Amino acid sequence: MHLTALSGGIGGARFLTGLRSILRPGDDLTVIGNTADDVWLFGLKVCPDLDSLMYTLGGGIDVERGWGRADETWHAKEELAAYGVEPTWFGLGDRDLATHVVRTQMLGAGYTLTQVTEALCVRWQPGVRLLPMSDDRVETHIVIDDESAASGRRAVHFQEYWVHMRASVPVRGVVEVGVEQSKPGPDVLDAITAADAVIVPPSNPIVSIGTILEVPGIREAVRAATGPVVGVSPIVGGAAVRGMADQLLGGLGIEVSASGVARHYGARSNGGVVDGWLVDERDRAAADELSDAQIACRAVPLLMSDADATATMAQDTLDLAAELAR
Amino acid sequence: MHLTALSGGIGGARFLTGLRSILRPGDDLTVIGNTADDVWLFGLKVCPDLDSLMYTLGGGIDVERGWGRADETWHAKEELAAYGVEPTWFGLGDRDLATHVVRTQMLGAGYTLTQVTEALCVRWQPGVRLLPMSDDRVETHIVIDDESAASGRRAVHFQEYWVHMRASVPVRGVVEVGVEQSKPGPDVLDAITAADAVIVPPSNPIVSIGTILEVPGIREAVRAATGPVVGVSPIVGGAAVRGMADQLLGGLGIEVSASGVARHYGARSNGGVVDGWLVDERDRAAADELSDAQIACRAVPLLMSDADATATMAQDTLDLAAELAR
Repeated sequence: MHLTALSGGIGGARFLTGLRSILRPGDDLTVIGNTADDVWLFGLKVCPDLDSLMYTLGGGIDVERGWGRADETWHAKEELAAYGVEPTWFGLGDRDLATHVVRTQMLGAGYTLTQVTEALCVRWQPGVRLLPMSDDRVETHIVIDDESAASGRRAVHFQEYWVHMRASVPVRGVVEVGVEQSKPGPDVLDAITAADAVIVPPSNPIVSIGTILEVPGIREAVRAATGPVVGVSPIVGGAAVRGMADQLLGGLGIEVSASGVARHYGARSNGGVVDGWLVDERDRAAADELSDAQIACRAVPLLMSDADATATMAQDTLDLAAELAR
Repeated sequence: MHLTALSGGIGGARFLTGLRSILRPGDDLTVIGNTADDVWLFGLKVCPDLDSLMYTLGGGIDVERGWGRADETWHAKEELAAYGVEPTWFGLGDRDLATHVVRTQMLGAGYTLTQVTEALCVRWQPGVRLLPMSDDRVETHIVIDDESAASGRRAVHFQEYWVHMRASVPVRGVVEVGVEQSKPGPDVLDAITAADAVIVPPSNPIVSIGTILEVPGIREAVRAATGPVVGVSPIVGGAAVRGMADQLLGGLGIEVSASGVARHYGARSNGGVVDGWLVDERDRAAADELSDAQIACRAVPLLMSDADATATMAQDTLDLAAELAR
């Protein structure tokens, strides 16, 4: 079975460890990672979602923290702050820094991000094929209020909004800088259209999955995929399982609920991108709410509390895909 | 009093802490640092001598080791090795790495190395004005035997010879790549010609001081300086006080002795670059050996065992300069 997943960072990565654990001999899993939260910091190319995927699936993640490297130290970051260079708020660990140094050097030598990611994965052996959504620069910027600006608003890089501001101010809009001119990475479209199933992990529907879908050609590929497309709700019991997705969704007029996110994605049979949708047992009512939306909804336990629970959740996802593929 | 020193890294830096400690109000010290051992590593610009000067004079050096930062960790280096990128032998600490990241980012933004060094020194407050010998790329390469090469020889970057090979094979030649096309950094020539005294600390006469003198215009400026030029022998009792200078000197046909290095520099009155020369008490015979060389030689204790000894040595240097200035 050939599986393809679209994924953001932390939540998606954890889900994918479960999906990987239930693959059978001969199965393969391609992961198309969001790169719109990438950021150039101190002259280095940082790819938070690709790195979360690589570190989590490669066994290098700090499990407690959920991001960055295990056994990490922060001395380079301290020194950068001592030099007075900005930003000081980004969590740049010493081990993590090496990844960005290698990536930046390879990009400077003319390799594409896809090639660099493949090279980094030779070390991490994530057990999946990890493809950046695009080799082109695409950056999510968040529009926020700013009384000092003539327009009353300004846009900040997603990382500034998320990490620095901790999503503490209302979102007035999201701008995907560069996305219209971007192209999908090599093999991205084929991996989607040829997959036996396309999986959408519980990643942020706007700034993770949404950005992937906005790369010209990817949404169309998902809509044209031969296999079913099954998503997993990132909203459980009316709130984001992790992170601060609530603010983003609410600010963009999307209902912060398991069914609200499904409606945002929409049914493939009706111009959208998913066929099936998994919600948590607590959100069982979503199935009824989605009955008119042509999305097959199943309620199962959606907490990734440990490896077994995550594997079960992944199996439920594949079961729904199998059901929809008939 | 306006003092100007030409300096390599570790030994020169230690001597300069002594010289700085005896400056009186109104005095100033300009240090022209060797940049020919600079190296691009992993896409980052590393300036070992400038950093040794900055860290030593700024109180950030690891005193025991003699190079690199105090309280250093080596996690990024471990990770770079795990990614399989070369070289693995360079001592790149996590704190030190931040310096190279800031420098590389500033160079990429169009600042000169002189401007970058000034910016880094805002943090370190070395108490001297630190000027790179040149803003242009100059690299010392060491010619060694290589049976597999058609010519029987090959050239390696100085850092590879020094750090990786630990100067363990004979030197067949030294090539200063780029030096002929290089220009002195801004203010370098003025700092030399206008100084009340020019000091040559106990740095390597070939790959530290020699490279500075080879930048077109600098040797001429030293020869034309209004103040006396006084050097301190890096050879004590027939061997380099620190490092592996013996191999370099011997390989180039320079006598490894206090007087041999003085003869290599030569008397200003006779086409060379020094007027006075300090040797260790053990090398008292050098004074006689140099009597025909028109170099005023004094024998004093030349071991920089502690701050007081180093300050005394610096005072002896200034005393000889004062004597020669009369």
